[in-house]
Amino acid sequence: MSAEQAPAHPQQNAKKEKKSKLQVSLKTPKGTKDWADTDMVIREAIFSSLSQLFKKHGGVTIDTPVFELREILAGKYGEDSKLIYDLKDQGGELCSLRYDLTVPFARFVAMNNIQNIKRYHIAKVYRRDQPAMTKGRMREFYQCDFDIAGSYESMVPDAEILSILVEGLTGLGINDFKVKLNHRKILDGIFQISGVKDEDVRKISSAVDKLDKSPWEVVRKEITVEKGQSEETADKIGEYVKLNGTLKEIHTILSQDSAITGNELAKQGLDEIATLMEYADAFGISKFISFDLSLARGLDYYTGLIYEAVTEASAPPENATELKKKSKSTDDASEYVGVGSIAAGGRYDNLVNMFAEASGKKSSSIPCVGVSFGVERIFSLIKQRTHLTNAIKPTATQVFVMAFGGGKDWTGLLPERMAITKKLWEAGIEAEYVYKSKANPRKQFDAADKAGCPIAVILGKEEFAEGKVRVKRLGQEFANDDGELVDSGDVIEAVKQKLSEVHKDGINDVTRLLKGL
Amino acid sequence: MSAEQAPAHPQQNAKKEKKSKLQVSLKTPKGTKDWADTDMVIREAIFSSLSQLFKKHGGVTIDTPVFELREILAGKYGEDSKLIYDLKDQGGELCSLRYDLTVPFARFVAMNNIQNIKRYHIAKVYRRDQPAMTKGRMREFYQCDFDIAGSYESMVPDAEILSILVEGLTGLGINDFKVKLNHRKILDGIFQISGVKDEDVRKISSAVDKLDKSPWEVVRKEITVEKGQSEETADKIGEYVKLNGTLKEIHTILSQDSAITGNELAKQGLDEIATLMEYADAFGISKFISFDLSLARGLDYYTGLIYEAVTEASAPPENATELKKKSKSTDDASEYVGVGSIAAGGRYDNLVNMFAEASGKKSSSIPCVGVSFGVERIFSLIKQRTHLTNAIKPTATQVFVMAFGGGKDWTGLLPERMAITKKLWEAGIEAEYVYKSKANPRKQFDAADKAGCPIAVILGKEEFAEGKVRVKRLGQEFANDDGELVDSGDVIEAVKQKLSEVHKDGINDVTRLLKGL
Repeated sequence: MSAEQAPAHPQQNAKKEKKSKLQVSLKTPKGTKDWADTDMVIREAIFSSLSQLFKKHGGVTIDTPVFELREILAGKYGEDSKLIYDLKDQGGELCSLRYDLTVPFARFVAMNNIQNIKRYHIAKVYRRDQPAMTKGRMREFYQCDFDIAGSYESMVPDAEILSILVEGLTGLGINDFKVKLNHRKILDGIFQISGVKDEDVRKISSAVDKLDKSPWEVVRKEITVEKGQSEETADKIGEYVKLNGTLKEIHTILSQDSAITGNELAKQGLDEIATLMEYADAFGISKFISFDLSLARGLDYYTGLIYEAVTEASAPPENATELKKKSKSTDDASEYVGVGSIAAGGRYDNLVNMFAEASGKKSSSIPCVGVSFGVERIFSLIKQRTHLTNAIKPTATQVFVMAFGGGKDWTGLLPERMAITKKLWEAGIEAEYVYKSKANPRKQFDAADKAGCPIAVILGKEEFAEGKVRVKRLGQEFANDDGELVDSGDVIEAVKQKLSEVHKDGINDVTRLLKGL
Repeated sequence: MSAEQAPAHPQQNAKKEKKSKLQVSLKTPKGTKDWADTDMVIREAIFSSLSQLFKKHGGVTIDTPVFELREILAGKYGEDSKLIYDLKDQGGELCSLRYDLTVPFARFVAMNNIQNIKRYHIAKVYRRDQPAMTKGRMREFYQCDFDIAGSYESMVPDAEILSILVEGLTGLGINDFKVKLNHRKILDGIFQISGVKDEDVRKISSAVDKLDKSPWEVVRKEITVEKGQSEETADKIGEYVKLNGTLKEIHTILSQDSAITGNELAKQGLDEIATLMEYADAFGISKFISFDLSLARGLDYYTGLIYEAVTEASAPPENATELKKKSKSTDDASEYVGVGSIAAGGRYDNLVNMFAEASGKKSSSIPCVGVSFGVERIFSLIKQRTHLTNAIKPTATQVFVMAFGGGKDWTGLLPERMAITKKLWEAGIEAEYVYKSKANPRKQFDAADKAGCPIAVILGKEEFAEGKVRVKRLGQEFANDDGELVDSGDVIEAVKQKLSEVHKDGINDVTRLLKGL
């Protein structure tokens, strides 16, 4: 056991704290990072794009605590429960950091007896996983979730969630993706047909889920050798899970398969797919969907449609396995694993009910369907549009207020710059000035340049004494443009006029980046 | 030791988890809550107002992890360190939830060798304090911080921070506040003059800090009896700390006091106040400031100006002490304690340096000054504008797409409603429809009403067969208005026209609420 892993002991900690005053590691905890500069501007623009989308679909937003009672999270994540961060027991309730936004949402719905809601939630979740920072796999990361809870006609909310998934990605300039889609009932039906016992279904399902990373031979071996199914069962499964194509293509194939149509579960799923096909056409999203029978999704709680959006960029490299072999540490190896899906979700009809029943409430079924966008992964894709990201400035500053002058009686006009800047702020205009009584012109221009500021208001010594200020465009192309001399009282109007020239196309750099223009 | 406080034991926990599947408490952890509905709309509007303000002042935003290495937080909060939430030791680094945004900011600045930055950060912080939910004192709560780091001329960034404080509150329709302001150097000078030894200064300072809640007699007793100062020292302190008035008034009084002007620290502070007076006038904020020598602020790290904004509404009730005596449980009593300040901050010139030195970096002084807005407390004040909060809807929905018809061949036009709604979404318009193949008009109108939706697009059976849809205003006053019948292809234009009528004053309910109109 390394020193780092030694259990906390009060006295040891006291010593450690004392020592730490002398030597502190200036870093963020493993798997976490600070966000700053243009990265923050881009990420906030992604959040803003998604929130607007969610609002367009009638969504309301909620905010739940970052930690939940430990018992709320217990038994929801299967094997992955070991990745949950627990809070230390400092007296009082035992709590854990949330692992996703879905379980807190189900708790919220059950706790408040909500019968139906369309809610979105953009917030951080926590997983003590092996980090792969460059691929966007972190221990602290954001999820952007939209879920529809309530009893509705089959596939109606599901189709809207799929439309939201497509609109969310295209709205961020991502168009080269496909939505892999499957139905848990069809998958379970296939397992029944192939001779898998009910109690083995989930573990066979999780083996099949690996087909996006491993070839069929490897998965087949897991099914037979590790998970004890017959060769015949495995081959039967193999026939089905290799199927993928458009909703229509695969629906046609399965409809002609008497084993499928003869299985109650699979038949139910197939009928739902038929309904979905009509709605997907109405929303114009069918072309994005790939009906893929190998998609299984890890989480236990899904009960119907499941889907995940993948792009070329997010697929694992061909030689991932080889690189993994060569690599020495697990940390390095994980760098070569693909970033996975950029958005995913499904239908989970029993989760709210589990909470209602477990708390002794009168149970009423609240079916749910939802989608979660992986913002960090989407962020990585957008960052690749480097010719656009380079144009983005971290500040929003539009005007720099400067003073030019000299001589013995030159005050530098600091309070006067402050007063004019204040007027600009009051007019809603982003404005700065240098924090110096007397600054030379070069320093002031440099500061304006650093802030990426398009306009200067200049208080020239003589001009200002006569009640005038100069309003001027900044930047290389305006080097020889002296701007306009206006009455101090008219400065706001003059600045607004110049701003309308600067932003005449109405599209700013962030919008351009997100649209991929 | 109660069962709740029993230390975590693996086997006990295993049992507990097993049991919890049968009986789960459907609640959020103590001192935390879910945010939903219009509360979220209001809170997001507050965040948006403050972010825009921060951007206007040239601020960039950062995001730091919700937990920090434990050693980063150690030794920064004095007595309050006991309120820090620790993460359980699950192997790896020892971490704690952040207690404020200032220490993570200082860590960020030191770690990245930043020489100057204006940064804002809106995020949750965590304190294991006794909650007083109705007063807005929670264990998980938001802070909105703006800080300026860097070596600048005296009082220049400080004055801008004070202007941000004033603009932040007035921008949220809060005008009946005053900014209590003091200077740590003047305060420390007064303690020296009064005969307090250097090593006793901080504890006497924290006694004086209680003057906003306790009368001088009580504080005087603490200074003499508990903290061992002479009667003479206490009385001398008492003479000074009772002083408050405008910057100018108190500056004049202190300037004529030879004990103050003869004390090096106090003289430095007084000179800075003189500089501040000029800048505060330039920003037009002097009228909000009350120079109050009793203000001391709890945190250890302040080194210069300190300030906090208080409103009538946030003062403790007169009879707080009596109520506290009568009340049985600590929980109840805490409900009667005032909510404290709604925004506060100060100058802290050594915090970044502490990190740089402790990590063995070449030390360079990075002075900082900042302000933190207490959003939950501001939220409580805004919620009191009930005639305005009642008008706010949780959804943004503008259009409800409906279908009316009947007879044997009536399909309900669900895919058609979907297709038209999709067009509206593509045009950036918030739109919904009911998730039912065939819904009667009443149900559809009720759903639109519940969403607070101003416009309906109606697909009438015969009209739609002829390629027409109806666009109509909703609400009592439009009950007899049949709206316009337009070609299906023109629906977006027609809706946009109606929307411009609905929002013709350009002010929505949330803006009205925040401005207190």
